[in-house]
Amino acid sequence: MTGEGELTVGVDVGGTKIAAGVVDEAGKLLASTRRETPATDTHLVLEAIGDAVRELRSHHAIAGVGIGAAGFVDSGRAKVLFAPNLAWRDEDLRDELSGRLDIPVVVENDANAVAWAESRFGAGRDHDDLVAITIGTGVGGGIITNGRLLRGGFGVAAEIGHITMVPYGRRCGCGLQGCWEQYGSGRALLTEALEIARHSPAFAAGLISAAGGDPNAITGELVTTCAQQGDVAALHCYDEIGRWIGLGLAQLAAVLDPTLFVIGGGVSAAGELLRSRVEETFRANLTGRGHRPVAEVRLAELGWESGMVGAADLARTSHDSAVPGSDR
Amino acid sequence: MTGEGELTVGVDVGGTKIAAGVVDEAGKLLASTRRETPATDTHLVLEAIGDAVRELRSHHAIAGVGIGAAGFVDSGRAKVLFAPNLAWRDEDLRDELSGRLDIPVVVENDANAVAWAESRFGAGRDHDDLVAITIGTGVGGGIITNGRLLRGGFGVAAEIGHITMVPYGRRCGCGLQGCWEQYGSGRALLTEALEIARHSPAFAAGLISAAGGDPNAITGELVTTCAQQGDVAALHCYDEIGRWIGLGLAQLAAVLDPTLFVIGGGVSAAGELLRSRVEETFRANLTGRGHRPVAEVRLAELGWESGMVGAADLARTSHDSAVPGSDR
Amino acid sequence: MTGEGELTVGVDVGGTKIAAGVVDEAGKLLASTRRETPATDTHLVLEAIGDAVRELRSHHAIAGVGIGAAGFVDSGRAKVLFAPNLAWRDEDLRDELSGRLDIPVVVENDANAVAWAESRFGAGRDHDDLVAITIGTGVGGGIITNGRLLRGGFGVAAEIGHITMVPYGRRCGCGLQGCWEQYGSGRALLTEALEIARHSPAFAAGLISAAGGDPNAITGELVTTCAQQGDVAALHCYDEIGRWIGLGLAQLAAVLDPTLFVIGGGVSAAGELLRSRVEETFRANLTGRGHRPVAEVRLAELGWESGMVGAADLARTSHDSAVPGSDR
Amino acid sequence: MTGEGELTVGVDVGGTKIAAGVVDEAGKLLASTRRETPATDTHLVLEAIGDAVRELRSHHAIAGVGIGAAGFVDSGRAKVLFAPNLAWRDEDLRDELSGRLDIPVVVENDANAVAWAESRFGAGRDHDDLVAITIGTGVGGGIITNGRLLRGGFGVAAEIGHITMVPYGRRCGCGLQGCWEQYGSGRALLTEALEIARHSPAFAAGLISAAGGDPNAITGELVTTCAQQGDVAALHCYDEIGRWIGLGLAQLAAVLDPTLFVIGGGVSAAGELLRSRVEETFRANLTGRGHRPVAEVRLAELGWESGMVGAADLARTSHDSAVPGSDR
Repeated sequence: MTGEGELTVGVDVGGTKIAAGVVDEAGKLLASTRRETPATDTHLVLEAIGDAVRELRSHHAIAGVGIGAAGFVDSGRAKVLFAPNLAWRDEDLRDELSGRLDIPVVVENDANAVAWAESRFGAGRDHDDLVAITIGTGVGGGIITNGRLLRGGFGVAAEIGHITMVPYGRRCGCGLQGCWEQYGSGRALLTEALEIARHSPAFAAGLISAAGGDPNAITGELVTTCAQQGDVAALHCYDEIGRWIGLGLAQLAAVLDPTLFVIGGGVSAAGELLRSRVEETFRANLTGRGHRPVAEVRLAELGWESGMVGAADLARTSHDSAVPGSDR
Repeated sequence: MTGEGELTVGVDVGGTKIAAGVVDEAGKLLASTRRETPATDTHLVLEAIGDAVRELRSHHAIAGVGIGAAGFVDSGRAKVLFAPNLAWRDEDLRDELSGRLDIPVVVENDANAVAWAESRFGAGRDHDDLVAITIGTGVGGGIITNGRLLRGGFGVAAEIGHITMVPYGRRCGCGLQGCWEQYGSGRALLTEALEIARHSPAFAAGLISAAGGDPNAITGELVTTCAQQGDVAALHCYDEIGRWIGLGLAQLAAVLDPTLFVIGGGVSAAGELLRSRVEETFRANLTGRGHRPVAEVRLAELGWESGMVGAADLARTSHDSAVPGSDR
Repeated sequence: MTGEGELTVGVDVGGTKIAAGVVDEAGKLLASTRRETPATDTHLVLEAIGDAVRELRSHHAIAGVGIGAAGFVDSGRAKVLFAPNLAWRDEDLRDELSGRLDIPVVVENDANAVAWAESRFGAGRDHDDLVAITIGTGVGGGIITNGRLLRGGFGVAAEIGHITMVPYGRRCGCGLQGCWEQYGSGRALLTEALEIARHSPAFAAGLISAAGGDPNAITGELVTTCAQQGDVAALHCYDEIGRWIGLGLAQLAAVLDPTLFVIGGGVSAAGELLRSRVEETFRANLTGRGHRPVAEVRLAELGWESGMVGAADLARTSHDSAVPGSDR
Repeated sequence: MTGEGELTVGVDVGGTKIAAGVVDEAGKLLASTRRETPATDTHLVLEAIGDAVRELRSHHAIAGVGIGAAGFVDSGRAKVLFAPNLAWRDEDLRDELSGRLDIPVVVENDANAVAWAESRFGAGRDHDDLVAITIGTGVGGGIITNGRLLRGGFGVAAEIGHITMVPYGRRCGCGLQGCWEQYGSGRALLTEALEIARHSPAFAAGLISAAGGDPNAITGELVTTCAQQGDVAALHCYDEIGRWIGLGLAQLAAVLDPTLFVIGGGVSAAGELLRSRVEETFRANLTGRGHRPVAEVRLAELGWESGMVGAADLARTSHDSAVPGSDR
């Protein structure tokens, strides 16, 4: 689609904001812009994306556009089948946008775009087989195998936040029970902290004090800050989610056998205190431990811009990763 | 390595027997031979494999040999890292055998070989993204994604029998707890039947009678036969394992998103009565159900020879599946 | 406190209503009255109880008052330590009321009062060792052992809705995870039905139609009605909660070994279709089955008035059940 | 049956040994004797018990005999319904022995006898509501409520080792799955240690070294010794079982609300390092925590003789504890 040296635009479409950026062939973000997401009106979302791309295009020669969308994307990388936080249902985003903008467009799941960015330019650039886990409110992921994005037969692979961790466990927004993201996510971290604050105020004194004395004012960010300062209750919350995240990694390793796991997303701001807990449980629960090589666990290197960078790079390399015969 | 029209040998090395066969480019088994597995002596196993290949070679022109081994195989497809039922530890099977036989050799995990066979010549020949599950005493599997075998970064992917189904659940021979194969395997089927016979002899009257009156004489095959004849206790055992197998498929679908699951192995002899139970639970537990296409669940079409056929075909196509640039 | 032939008043204090009734020594309700519960003001609740008792007293000679309260009651049967749906915290209900009304007062947990009523005048009148389970939105219970109410060392025994069924399972309002009442209650029944309606509308067609076409209009009562008419989706919901309730009974039997379980509360309106499901799972999961007698499972015989009847009878017999030397 | 000042004999009948002792009214063991258990022949077991009692009787005036037996004892305290490690099935132990010895005999479950001894003369002598947990290879227990032994309607209460901890969890010898004693017992402690030694030999170096270099020579006692010396792997094993024991206590507290838990049995030799772990998890998982008094967790005070002491005292006080109207 495009050659080396050309620029592409990556667009990260979330439930609350749209971020678009110009990215070069080395994964460097040259310029970016943002819009609010008009979440309930699919037409307005298309307008906002188009508007953002046009703004960037007015200063840069763009050879293609990659869209990272929070939802199920079809195997042709054209349609959003379903997006829990947007109104899209079988929306042909690719044709709509490429028609409006007169430029090649490729659509990808946002967590896949993040995984691709980390595998090309981030923590995984020396690995061909990795799983990137994005731990925010929920848990998303992208899988790179043999240097390619594993998209699945219908395009909806790597919905890893919804592997079952606990049969008959906590209800999940996806309609199932016991999904991983109910145990190993930012939401789980906060729930744990709020429960401790409510039921064991003495143990949670540090957290409550940091929240200005109001247990209900505790946030996930505050738990992370307190944990980094050594607060025992906050560290206990990280023990909990770290354990569940590590158990999930062990399951993914049994299926996919990557050489690397990359931990990103808002919760990974906790850094080494999260990574070390995850790694410990992962190693202890790996099938065949002692008889097989063990994957590394690293923190993501790219930050908030990784969705844009990945989507942009996928626009550049889309003919490679979609079609057998990749040059990687 | 070899061209079309040429013949290769596939060898299926299990804990009790070695089966070797000559296979053509259409997956047809032209001739085969067997040996006992001298399980405790790695040298004798090599001898037996070599002997079987030489026997077949005396009547057929062979262009390569594929070995399917029950164990962890390295990413170079040369070494058996670990085999629970054989004495191999870091055994360079490929070099040992290719030296002895003066012929190209490729080594593969046996369940991977089965999956490959089904994807090329069996139930999955019209699919590019499938998971083949081999349900015998335990649970094994192989993953085909985008027409290629997913081998993982270290070569040990698709150890799907060891994804955790029940945290802190039943002990598994792999050292972990709650592994899938403790709930959805032939061993689980038999355990369930034996417990029913012991504790609810009236309910299990049909099973006990079929076992000649001795509850301890119940076997997995007998449970299957009774289930096919409509015995309620035997069907209950299939309800149990069918439910767990279906739950496991839902987890694999969340990660891999295949368009097809192929159910094989000894327990699949139960046929539709197993398949329908598995499919029902799978569909009810699929994340995003209602918003995504749903994979089919089929029974395997190839029988006991699939390990040989797959290994032989991998010997033929090894340069394709190992290296980007496959012609599939 | 009172002799035979005398009348007592029982008061059932719930989160939304206060019901008070005059009860004779045979457990017969002679008259009753109701008030709204002024839930947020403890003073007004006392006023309302006093007012209801005075109304009944104007027509009947009353020898004592028993209060059944939804909360933790202390071992002296005087104070409400904590009531989740009322504002009481360490409220000395007994002294407050006996002072106002100049009559002996005894306070008891409401589910204990129900259990006592069933053991004296209802389904358990021929048993000395029983557990009565009240299945409404949540799950409550009362335990009779050797003819006496088991109150525990601190007065808060029989919080059976909060035994853990699933480690790390669904969050419970009590702050723990995986409590029984998250799986085997009216709330669980409704949640199951709503999920089915949302995700499998074809399967739930009968339920949705009975709700006037609006899945969100499904109620617990409607699920019960549909189940009684043979609707498969409604019966499936009863399969689910019946199984969990039966598992809970098996746990209680392991600890308490009653000769009878009595199933009451709003969900028990489903009658035999619930009872049979509960009993089947209970029997299948009883430790030592085959080597021990098995408790019966019956439906409660007393209806909405059982809380009043039990509280009134406890007022009559309070010196017996609290003190060794009972005449039972 | 007997007055103060008289002596009784307690007999503790286990699967491998029979211990009998003369006990005074203060719970003091004055003399004792032992026999091997002829486990497969019920007649010989009776002979051995009779022989032991006669030996003690030749030096002491005995007013009654109490038998503590590892099995289900009927509500009349006469028959052993079932004993997993002995050949008894519906054995009328009381009549057989009282006939042979011409002395009053009472039969009780052995863990109940231990609980009674602790409640009368040991860690629970200041409590009327307690649960005594005996943690050996498995988990047994006895319940004291309002100063009496809770025997259940059929005599088989307090089979607390078989409450379900993990649905579909580890197989138990009782035929069920996920029983508490599969997670919180001496057997679980040893299994955990052996698995660590096998799979993480570096982590388990201390344990393996203490076992003379042979991982398979690790015993439960050795794990305890190493834990007391601060070995990290041994402490990890205690973390595991301590957590599960604490979870079980929380469940028992929800049902029974004792004011005290007494931890005894072979595993309790670990002392405070076990007790503190148990208590921590118990407190964190108690329903209503923060709104109710919390039971204490103590170590047992009586040792190996507690079964004899309890059985002897039950022989003395049998008319009290069996019949309403106790003087306690």
